[in-house]
Amino acid sequence: MTHFSSQAALNLRMIRDRKPLIHNITNYVVMNYTANALLCAGASPVMAHAEGEVEDMVSLSKALVLNIGTLTDDWVASMIQAGKRANVLNIPVILDPVGSGATALRTRSAKRILEQTSIKVLRGNASEILSLRSADSKTKGVDSVHSVEDAADIAGTLARELKTTLAITGAVDLVTDGKQQFRVENGHPLMGKVTGTGCTATAIIGAFLAVDGDPVSAASTALAFFGLAGEYAAKKAQSPGSFMIALLDALYDISPDELEKGCRIREA
Amino acid sequence: MTHFSSQAALNLRMIRDRKPLIHNITNYVVMNYTANALLCAGASPVMAHAEGEVEDMVSLSKALVLNIGTLTDDWVASMIQAGKRANVLNIPVILDPVGSGATALRTRSAKRILEQTSIKVLRGNASEILSLRSADSKTKGVDSVHSVEDAADIAGTLARELKTTLAITGAVDLVTDGKQQFRVENGHPLMGKVTGTGCTATAIIGAFLAVDGDPVSAASTALAFFGLAGEYAAKKAQSPGSFMIALLDALYDISPDELEKGCRIREA
Amino acid sequence: MTHFSSQAALNLRMIRDRKPLIHNITNYVVMNYTANALLCAGASPVMAHAEGEVEDMVSLSKALVLNIGTLTDDWVASMIQAGKRANVLNIPVILDPVGSGATALRTRSAKRILEQTSIKVLRGNASEILSLRSADSKTKGVDSVHSVEDAADIAGTLARELKTTLAITGAVDLVTDGKQQFRVENGHPLMGKVTGTGCTATAIIGAFLAVDGDPVSAASTALAFFGLAGEYAAKKAQSPGSFMIALLDALYDISPDELEKGCRIREA
Repeated sequence: MTHFSSQAALNLRMIRDRKPLIHNITNYVVMNYTANALLCAGASPVMAHAEGEVEDMVSLSKALVLNIGTLTDDWVASMIQAGKRANVLNIPVILDPVGSGATALRTRSAKRILEQTSIKVLRGNASEILSLRSADSKTKGVDSVHSVEDAADIAGTLARELKTTLAITGAVDLVTDGKQQFRVENGHPLMGKVTGTGCTATAIIGAFLAVDGDPVSAASTALAFFGLAGEYAAKKAQSPGSFMIALLDALYDISPDELEKGCRIREA
Repeated sequence: MTHFSSQAALNLRMIRDRKPLIHNITNYVVMNYTANALLCAGASPVMAHAEGEVEDMVSLSKALVLNIGTLTDDWVASMIQAGKRANVLNIPVILDPVGSGATALRTRSAKRILEQTSIKVLRGNASEILSLRSADSKTKGVDSVHSVEDAADIAGTLARELKTTLAITGAVDLVTDGKQQFRVENGHPLMGKVTGTGCTATAIIGAFLAVDGDPVSAASTALAFFGLAGEYAAKKAQSPGSFMIALLDALYDISPDELEKGCRIREA
Repeated sequence: MTHFSSQAALNLRMIRDRKPLIHNITNYVVMNYTANALLCAGASPVMAHAEGEVEDMVSLSKALVLNIGTLTDDWVASMIQAGKRANVLNIPVILDPVGSGATALRTRSAKRILEQTSIKVLRGNASEILSLRSADSKTKGVDSVHSVEDAADIAGTLARELKTTLAITGAVDLVTDGKQQFRVENGHPLMGKVTGTGCTATAIIGAFLAVDGDPVSAASTALAFFGLAGEYAAKKAQSPGSFMIALLDALYDISPDELEKGCRIREA
C-alpha cells in the first residue's frame, strides 16, 4: 500500500468528470504535445499569452501553467501578469523553470516569476531547481547535470526558502514542501528520449492542482500518473517516436482504478 | 445518394493534381499538425506571418487560412494585411475565430478581421460563431458550451448578416450561406480528443476553397472528407495519440472514389 | 564500398557517446519534430531565440542550427547575433534558408545571414539554394521548383562564391564545397509528405557537424543517416502520419554498423 494511492485515483476521476480548463503560457516546442497530454488526461487545455488577454483567460481557468522554455521578456511579463491575477483569484500556479541555470536570462526570469507571484508547485530537474538557490550551479542546456539525489539533502530547506512545493524529477522523483517529503518511483527511461516530457509532467501537475488543493499530494499523484503512463507506453513501444504516441494513449487509457493499483509513492 | 458526393470526389482529385499552395497564419499549437494534414490531403502548406512578407506570400497562394488561436495584436495585423491583399487578388480567405467569446481580445479581433476583410468561410464551434453575433455569449476556453443545434436556428440569419458562409462544427456539422443549408454527418467522437482538429478542419476547408469556387460546397465537402478520415482512423486506433496519427494517414489514404461513397452531406 | 561509410558510423557513434548540445533558432512548425529527431539521433537539442540569451546559449553548444522557416526581423537579428558569437568560438553554424526565393524577405534575410556570419553548411532544396545566387529564381512556397540536377552544374561555383559547403537535397542529394562533390542516394519519397523533413535534415547535419570538423563529410554522412532512416521507416509505414513516427524510431534504432552498411554516398 503506497501513500496517496486512493487520492491519485480520486484526482484522476475528478479531472475526467470536471474537465478543468488549464491555462498554459508555455514554450513553442511542447505546446502541441502538452495540449494533447492534457486532453488525454481529461482536462481542457488553452494556450494564450497576449498581454491583452491573459488576465481574462486565467480567470476562466482552474490552474495556470507557466513554462519558460522559449522565453523572451514579453512572454515573461505575460506570465507574471497572469500569475498575479491567478493569485488574486486563488487559482493555483505551477512554474517550470526550463533551462534555469543554463543562461542568465533563464535564471533571472525564473527568479523574477518566483518573487512576483505565488507559485504552488515548482517542477524542474535537479539542476534547474538548484540554480534557483545559488548562482554557482550549472545546467547543460535544458538537461540536468545533477541527479535528484544531489538535490535531496537541501530540497526541504529550499522549499521552505522559496515558500513553494518542489517537484524535482528524474529517475525517481522527489516532492517536498519542506515539511513532508515523498518519492515517486513510477516512470521509464524512454521518457527522457522524448522532448518536453518534463514540460508535460508540469502540465499534468497543473491538471491535478485544479482538483486537489494540497500541492504535495497533487504533485505526487500527478507524477505517479504520468510515470505510470510511461510504464504502460513502454509495453507497447520501444523507440521514442512510437513511445511518445503510446504515452498519449496511456494517459487516456489508464483508469482511476489502474492508477490506484499502479502508483508507487513512498514517504522519504 | 447524398448532396455534393461527386463534387467531393472532384475537389479531392483537383487538390491532389494541383497541389495548391495554402498560406496559413495560424496558431503555434497546431502549426505542425495542420501542415502535415494539408500535405496528406495533397495540398502544399506554407506558414508565414511577418508583416514584411505576408502580401508576397499570399500572392503565390491559392487560399489563405487565418486562425487566432494564439493571437497577439501584431499577428492580427498581419492577418488583416494578408486578407486585404487576398481580397484584391480574389484568393479565398477562411477564418477560424478560435476562442472567440472566451476573452474580449479574441472576440474583438475576430470581429475586426471580419469587418476589414472579406471572408469566404467562417469555421468555428457553435459558441465561437454565436459570439460574433452578440456580446452576451460565453465560451469556455476554446471548447464550445453551445451545441450546433443551439446555433441552427439563427445560422442563416447570421450568415447573411456577416456576408459569409458559416461552417459550424460539432457532432453534426452545419454549413450555410443564408440561402442554402447543409448538414455533414461524417466524423468521430475521438476527433474531440485531439488538439486542433477544429483548426485542421479549417485548414482542409482552405484547401477545398482553393479548387472549388462555391464556399458552401467547398466547406461541406471538406468537412465530409475530414470527418470520413476520422471514421477511417477510428477503425485503426481507439486512443487519441494513435488516433491523431491514423487521422493523418487517412487523409492521405482516402481516394476520391472512397470519398464519393463515404461522404454524408444532406440538405437541412 | 561507398565513400565515407566508416566515417558515417564513427560520427553516429560519437554523437551517441557525447550527446552534443545543438542550439536551434528555427521555425515554429518544426520545433517539436526536430527536437525529437535530434534526441533520437543521440544529440541534446535546445531551442532559444531571445536576444538576451542566444550568445550565452550558443557558448554552451557544439553546433548552431539557423532556420528561417517562420522568420521575422527580430528572429533574424537573433540568428545573426548567435552566428557571430558561434564564429568567434569556432562553433559550426548551419543555415537552412527555408523558402528563400519565394518572398523578398526570405531571400534578403538568408543573404544577410550569409554575409554577416560564416556558415559551414548551407542546406536547402535546389530552388532555395539557387535563389541565393541570382534574383530571377522562383520558389513556390517552401517547395522546390528546381531539381537537384538543375543546380548540379553550378553548385561548385556557387559553393566557392558563398564560401560554404552546399547540401542540396532532393531525390538524390548533392554535397559540395566547390572542390569535392558527393551524391547521397539514401532516402524515400514519403519523406516529402512530412512537413519539415528538410528542416530535420538540417538539424541532423548540425549534430554531425558537432562531431566532424569536415563539413563535406559531416553533411554527406548526416544525409545518408537521415535518408537511411527514411528507408527503414518506409518498411514499417506506408502513409505519412505513421511514417513520420517510424522515421523518429529509425533515427534511434539505426546502429553505427547498420549505417556503415546502408549508407550510399558516391563521388560525383
